[in-house]
Amino acid sequence: MTLMDRNIDTLPRIDGERLWSRLMSMAEIGARDDDGVDRQALSAEDRAAMARLIGWGEAIGVTASFDTAGNLFLTLPGASEGAPVLIGSHLDSQPTGGRFDGVYGVLAAFEVLETLHDAGITPPRPITLVAWMNEEGGRFAPGMMGSEVFAGHRSLDDIRAVRDAEGISVGAELDLLAETFPQVPRHEPGFALHAYIEPHIEQADRLERDALVIGAVTGIQGKKTYEITLSGREAHAGTEPMERRADAVQAFARVALAMQAAALEAGPDIRFTIGRVEVEPNAPSVVPATVRFRIDLRHPENAVLDRVGAALEAAAEQEASPCTSAVRRMVDAPANGFSPALRAAILASAAARGLPATELLSAAGHDARHMAPLTAAAMIFIPCRGGLSHHPDEWADPDHVAAGAQVLLDTCLKAASATRENGDLS
Amino acid sequence: MTLMDRNIDTLPRIDGERLWSRLMSMAEIGARDDDGVDRQALSAEDRAAMARLIGWGEAIGVTASFDTAGNLFLTLPGASEGAPVLIGSHLDSQPTGGRFDGVYGVLAAFEVLETLHDAGITPPRPITLVAWMNEEGGRFAPGMMGSEVFAGHRSLDDIRAVRDAEGISVGAELDLLAETFPQVPRHEPGFALHAYIEPHIEQADRLERDALVIGAVTGIQGKKTYEITLSGREAHAGTEPMERRADAVQAFARVALAMQAAALEAGPDIRFTIGRVEVEPNAPSVVPATVRFRIDLRHPENAVLDRVGAALEAAAEQEASPCTSAVRRMVDAPANGFSPALRAAILASAAARGLPATELLSAAGHDARHMAPLTAAAMIFIPCRGGLSHHPDEWADPDHVAAGAQVLLDTCLKAASATRENGDLS
Repeated sequence: MTLMDRNIDTLPRIDGERLWSRLMSMAEIGARDDDGVDRQALSAEDRAAMARLIGWGEAIGVTASFDTAGNLFLTLPGASEGAPVLIGSHLDSQPTGGRFDGVYGVLAAFEVLETLHDAGITPPRPITLVAWMNEEGGRFAPGMMGSEVFAGHRSLDDIRAVRDAEGISVGAELDLLAETFPQVPRHEPGFALHAYIEPHIEQADRLERDALVIGAVTGIQGKKTYEITLSGREAHAGTEPMERRADAVQAFARVALAMQAAALEAGPDIRFTIGRVEVEPNAPSVVPATVRFRIDLRHPENAVLDRVGAALEAAAEQEASPCTSAVRRMVDAPANGFSPALRAAILASAAARGLPATELLSAAGHDARHMAPLTAAAMIFIPCRGGLSHHPDEWADPDHVAAGAQVLLDTCLKAASATRENGDLS
Repeated sequence: MTLMDRNIDTLPRIDGERLWSRLMSMAEIGARDDDGVDRQALSAEDRAAMARLIGWGEAIGVTASFDTAGNLFLTLPGASEGAPVLIGSHLDSQPTGGRFDGVYGVLAAFEVLETLHDAGITPPRPITLVAWMNEEGGRFAPGMMGSEVFAGHRSLDDIRAVRDAEGISVGAELDLLAETFPQVPRHEPGFALHAYIEPHIEQADRLERDALVIGAVTGIQGKKTYEITLSGREAHAGTEPMERRADAVQAFARVALAMQAAALEAGPDIRFTIGRVEVEPNAPSVVPATVRFRIDLRHPENAVLDRVGAALEAAAEQEASPCTSAVRRMVDAPANGFSPALRAAILASAAARGLPATELLSAAGHDARHMAPLTAAAMIFIPCRGGLSHHPDEWADPDHVAAGAQVLLDTCLKAASATRENGDLS
C-alpha cells in the first residue's frame, strides 16, 4: 500500500503548538518594537534565521545545503533517491514586515519534516524544505531572486551584481553567507523536482470573509508593469495661449481615460491601476512639462494580459499628442496555473480534516510562480487577519497556522507517493 | 501754460547712466553668487535697500516716510499740497530673483524725482515715490501685502499675523523696521491719490518678439486659483475589482478633461492650467485614494472669469463620482483696466521720444492692480530678455531701462498737470 492509497486519517498529526512556538521564536530575529519583523534578505538577521533553522534540522538529523544563489535546503531522505517533493517559502521580510509572510511556509515545511521524523515515516522519495533567497525584494530589487535563479530565469552573475541602497552587492553578501556556514555543503542552483508545495498567508481577506481556513490556490495572476513618460513643454500659466501649449497633465488625463477604457474591454478579471503619478515642475502657475506615471496591470490569462498591454501602449502613443510618450516595460510576469492534482489533494485533505476550504486565485506573486513551469506546483493559503500583510500587525490564527501545516503534510505525502507516469501529478 | 500743455520736447531728459548705475548698486544688496538677487520682504537686505534709497533721497532733499504697513514713500513737493501722483514699484525680490523685477520701477521713479530736482522744476502737485512692502510673497505669502493694506483690502492686523517658514511674523519685522529708522516719520496706511504709474519689466516676451521698447499696459487680467481634492478609496491594485473601485486618479482624469473643455468654450483669451497634482498614497500597486490639485484660471474680463470658474466647480462635482470632490477657492483677483488717459499719455510720450510702443495686457499681477480702483492708474512695461523673470538671469537692456524712465517722467508730469474735473484723467 502506497501513501497515496492510505486513508488521510492514518497520516500523522502535526504539532500545532510546536509550530507556533517556532514561529514566535523566529519572530525574535529582526524583531521590531512594534511587534513587526525587519529581516531583510541576506542581512545579519536573515543569516541568524538560517542558522536557527539549520540548528533545528541538525536536532532531527536532516541535512542542510545551500545553492550558490543563497537558497537553503533541508532534506529528509526518502526510501528512494529520486527527485524530491520541495516544500517551503522564504525567511526574509519587508523592512516593516510581520511574523508570518514567508517564514510561515518555511516553518510549516519544517513541522512536516519533524512530524515525519518523529513518526518514523520514511517517505517514498526525499522531502526537501526550501527557504528561498530574497523573495521580498525590499533590499535588493526585484524580489524572488533565489527562485528565479533556481528556475534558470536569471543568471547568478546577474543577481550578484545587484546592489542595495548602501551599495552592498548581492554577490558580496552571498560570499559572506558562504563564509558564515563553512560546514554546510554548497551546490549549483537547480535540480529536478517531483513536486513543489508552498504554504503562505493569503495576504487578502477572501478566506476570512467567507470563514474559510484553507485556500487551494488555482494560480497566480499575470502582472505587467510599465512606466510611461509624457513630455510636453513648460510655459507660463498666465501667458501661454491654450492652442500653443503642450500640457503634460492634460495629455495624462486623455491617456489615463483611454487606457482605462481599453482595459475594461477585457472583462471583469482585469485589474488596471495608475497608482503613481509624478508631475514636473509641479508648480501651480506653470504649464506642466512632464508627467511620469506607473501602470499595474493584472489578469489570470496571459493572452488577455498581452492584448491589453499592447492596447495600453497604443493608447499612450495615440492620446499623448501634442506631447510625446515613452513607454518603459518593467515587470512582465506571466500568469500560471497550479497542478490540478495537487489542488484536488489539498481540497481532499481539508475535507478529511474538517477544514472549510475553497479554490482561489493569488493576486500577489510568490516563488511558486517560478516552480510551476518546472514541476507540479501548488500553494496552500491560510487566512490572515483583515487581509493585512507587509505590516507589523500581520496576524494569523494559531488554529489556521496548524491547519495549513497539516494540509501540507497530507498533500506532500500524497505527492511523494504519486507518479507522473500514471497521471497522478497532472 | 501748464505742464499738460507743454510740448514733450521741452520736458527734461532723465539720466540713463545714473539710473543704470543705481540699479547695479541696488543689486549688490542681497547679491547672489549667480548674479541674481535674494532680497526678500522685510529681511535685513530689504531694510538695507530702503536705507540706501532714503539716503539717496536725503541728498536731493526729498522727504521719506513710512506707513505702518512698511510701505516707503519719498515725496518731491509740488506747487500745491493736493493729492500726489504716486510712482514706483517694490524693492523686495524672490529668493532666486533678478536685478530688475520691482526695483526697476522704484529706481525709475527716483530718477524722475532727481531729474525734476536737478532741473529746478516744481510740479503742480507732489510727486511721491513708493516702494511697496512685500510684493513678491516668497517669504510672507501671499504677496502685494503693502498695496493691499494701503487700498484697504486687508487689515494691518491681518498681515501682521502672517509668519514666514521660520515662524517670524510680519508684525515683528514691521516693528524692527520702525526701530531701524527712528528718524523717518510713520503714518497710517492710505491717502488720497491723484494718479498712480508703475514701470516694470514685462516678464513675458511680447515686446522683445516685436522689437518694441514701451508697453502701455491696458490692464491686468483677472485670476482665480482653486485647490480641488478628489477623495476615493485606497485598495490593492491586484485584487480590488474594477467596478468596486473609487479610483481618485481616474476621477482626476475625467475632471481635468471636463474642466479643460469648459474653459476652452470661453475663447482664445482664457488661460486654464492644472500645474500641481499630488496623489496619495502614490504607490505603484495601490489604487489611489486622493488626488489634490491646483487650478490657475485667468481672463481679462471678470464676467468670463466668473462664468468659467463656476463651470470648473460644476465639472469637479459632476465628474468626480464615485469619488467625492471638495473645492477650495484661493486667489480671486478681478481683472482691472488702466486709465485710458494715462495709456494715451504713455503712447504719446513713446511716440514723441521715438520709442516703438504698443498697448498690451499684463498676465502677471502687480501692485497697480490694487491702485486701479482708487485712482487713475497705469503701468509702463519695458522688455526683458527672453521674457525671463524671477530668475538670476533676468536682464533688461540699458537703453530700454532709460526709455521706460523717460516715459514715466513725461507721463507723470502730464498727470500732475491734469485735472479730474476736465476729464483729463479718465
